[in-house]
Amino acid sequence: MISQKYKKMLEGKSVIRELSEFATERGKVIGYENVFDYSLGNPSVPVPKEFTQVMMDLLSSKSPTELHGYSPSLGIPSVRKKIAESLNGRFNMNYSENHIFMTTGAAGAIAHAVRCVTEPGDEVLTFAPFFPEYHPYIDLTGAVLKVVPPNTEDFQINFTMFEEMLNEKVAAVLINSPNNPSGVIYSAETIKQLADFLRKKEKEYGHEIFIISDEPYREILFEGADSIYVSNYYNNTLSCYSYSKSLSLPGERIGYVAVNPACKDSDLIVSMCGQISRGIGHNCPPSLIQLAVAEVVDLTADMSVYETNMNLIYEKLIDLGFTCVKPDGTFYIFPKALEEDAKVFCKKALQYDLILVPGDSFGCPGYFRMAYCIDTEKVERSLSKLEEFVNSEYRK
Amino acid sequence: MISQKYKKMLEGKSVIRELSEFATERGKVIGYENVFDYSLGNPSVPVPKEFTQVMMDLLSSKSPTELHGYSPSLGIPSVRKKIAESLNGRFNMNYSENHIFMTTGAAGAIAHAVRCVTEPGDEVLTFAPFFPEYHPYIDLTGAVLKVVPPNTEDFQINFTMFEEMLNEKVAAVLINSPNNPSGVIYSAETIKQLADFLRKKEKEYGHEIFIISDEPYREILFEGADSIYVSNYYNNTLSCYSYSKSLSLPGERIGYVAVNPACKDSDLIVSMCGQISRGIGHNCPPSLIQLAVAEVVDLTADMSVYETNMNLIYEKLIDLGFTCVKPDGTFYIFPKALEEDAKVFCKKALQYDLILVPGDSFGCPGYFRMAYCIDTEKVERSLSKLEEFVNSEYRK
Repeated sequence: MISQKYKKMLEGKSVIRELSEFATERGKVIGYENVFDYSLGNPSVPVPKEFTQVMMDLLSSKSPTELHGYSPSLGIPSVRKKIAESLNGRFNMNYSENHIFMTTGAAGAIAHAVRCVTEPGDEVLTFAPFFPEYHPYIDLTGAVLKVVPPNTEDFQINFTMFEEMLNEKVAAVLINSPNNPSGVIYSAETIKQLADFLRKKEKEYGHEIFIISDEPYREILFEGADSIYVSNYYNNTLSCYSYSKSLSLPGERIGYVAVNPACKDSDLIVSMCGQISRGIGHNCPPSLIQLAVAEVVDLTADMSVYETNMNLIYEKLIDLGFTCVKPDGTFYIFPKALEEDAKVFCKKALQYDLILVPGDSFGCPGYFRMAYCIDTEKVERSLSKLEEFVNSEYRK
Repeated sequence: MISQKYKKMLEGKSVIRELSEFATERGKVIGYENVFDYSLGNPSVPVPKEFTQVMMDLLSSKSPTELHGYSPSLGIPSVRKKIAESLNGRFNMNYSENHIFMTTGAAGAIAHAVRCVTEPGDEVLTFAPFFPEYHPYIDLTGAVLKVVPPNTEDFQINFTMFEEMLNEKVAAVLINSPNNPSGVIYSAETIKQLADFLRKKEKEYGHEIFIISDEPYREILFEGADSIYVSNYYNNTLSCYSYSKSLSLPGERIGYVAVNPACKDSDLIVSMCGQISRGIGHNCPPSLIQLAVAEVVDLTADMSVYETNMNLIYEKLIDLGFTCVKPDGTFYIFPKALEEDAKVFCKKALQYDLILVPGDSFGCPGYFRMAYCIDTEKVERSLSKLEEFVNSEYRK
């Protein structure tokens, strides 16, 4: 018989996917250029030319059996070394290649990190607003995801609620900064307060509480934003990274787990990831992509368009009277809807060909997400639609 | 705290890996060309030139955001369609793209297939000799792998033992033909007998018993061998494929699950694979590799060297008095050792720089595996070593 658990999951429809499908259908009618689709976090800028050149060079110069041969299950040693050195140089860490485990994107990284530091039934806490995929990511490991309600004032951590919810069963805290969907970076003060509190509780409970730091947007920072590397503040940190956003390579599924060398059992965790791999069928990310990424490890795509778009949208939102925390990075913004039920608000917006995502599935009802990884020209055209929508529906 | 389950797995050392490490170390002393390393199943022939050309063409002609964008979680529709059509043409099936789920190799395919059709605690039966990685593949899904003892006469299925072991808790049967390590193909009679018996038991138990058919060696067939497509014989079949061996692309992690359209719940299984993906962190195999493989879907690498090597080795083994079933395909052969304990036999062989793998971990003690995906020139040189080994140790 087919698995009842996975069959049941088919019933839960993704709001984001439904909206995206609506956008596609509507595009067939009025032309996709006239649908202002803010639903999907799919990078809109090209990979750096250097990446394509490296790929071409590898394909034309390397022996195919070497190039396409099995990667060792932990990743190609030279690739892991380059990543360790890059992180050390940028964030003043002391990783060696033995602290880097290559994964198929951040999803693969989290799949391994959570299994490494939890037993079935353990709790993992995350902070709203949060990426809704954390639910299947965590639930299917056997651990239990609990969501700390948001601090909607500035989208930093709601420490009052967090301290109430932290208990002996919590094995890990999953954070995401720069944050999807708010675009906010947790400040040094926030991370320090989090780290201090966790250290205190680790002593009290007599076991580690790991931070699993999901960092796919780490490189997308706007003017004035501080670059905060979480592992600098807390030893028991597993950093989960993906090149999907920084290099605009989401389809190629390449990322890593970086284990803080000062972390408890740091000498075991990467090898344990290799064991986990055997059970979940990863084994190793594609060899060719590993080799190519290692050659452009300090580059990023030209992501300036995201900041341009953010400024245009933010100013317009403020002009129109929205309550909105200004993003520090990413390509998301998370304003408050103009009526209590953001689902109703977003549904009305569809009539103006604006595809906005209600905040409910992000654990933050009453807000909505805009993913502005689209062309600036389109953003500009969308703003008059936004104005029309607001004026017609809420300023009658 | 770190997971005790995965920590414990670190204690179990892979015999194959240890032997391969020995070979590397020995190679540093006497030159790797003088180590006759039959331990690893790593293809020795290059990917077809057409694949490299397609990759270059894609990289130089496609828009990077399109080329490297997210694949839909079930795989790129055009790729799934091409694979379905290729299978239909070759094996007289009637797959549509909706029956194909793209995976990261056969390991990824099995990870999804097993989760689709089992509940925790269900039994999965496999047949010795079998690929030892089936243990972590199955154990970590929550199902329980049980191994049917071998039929060492011809390495077909031991039906006496199988019929004894099949019971109501068995949700799936995992088969691998052409077989690693024996190189044998299950005959049409074997598959028919298996299918008939399973259909009878499905009725008796009132639930499906799926065949999960692991087929990475499907294209490596020797002269006179029949090409048997398991799904032709049994509706409730999930075929797990990898391009690792047929295209010599093991590092690029690309394969699929093909769900027989006549299978129970065939309309749900591929979508369920997409749900499973979310929990184990795959999401989708690399876009670029999907697109490239789709263009060479009916090609294989030139694998004639494997048959040449097999014939050389088989003849020598028979000459030297070994008991050995002649392989029908793959790049493995699985002779009987010349003493009861194959571990002792293989250890002695190391003194002659012959790296052979004892059959114990394949569920078949007393036998040993040779993976002859190496240059023919090296095979030829190894045979005098083999003769020297046998004569010195067993014909004194």
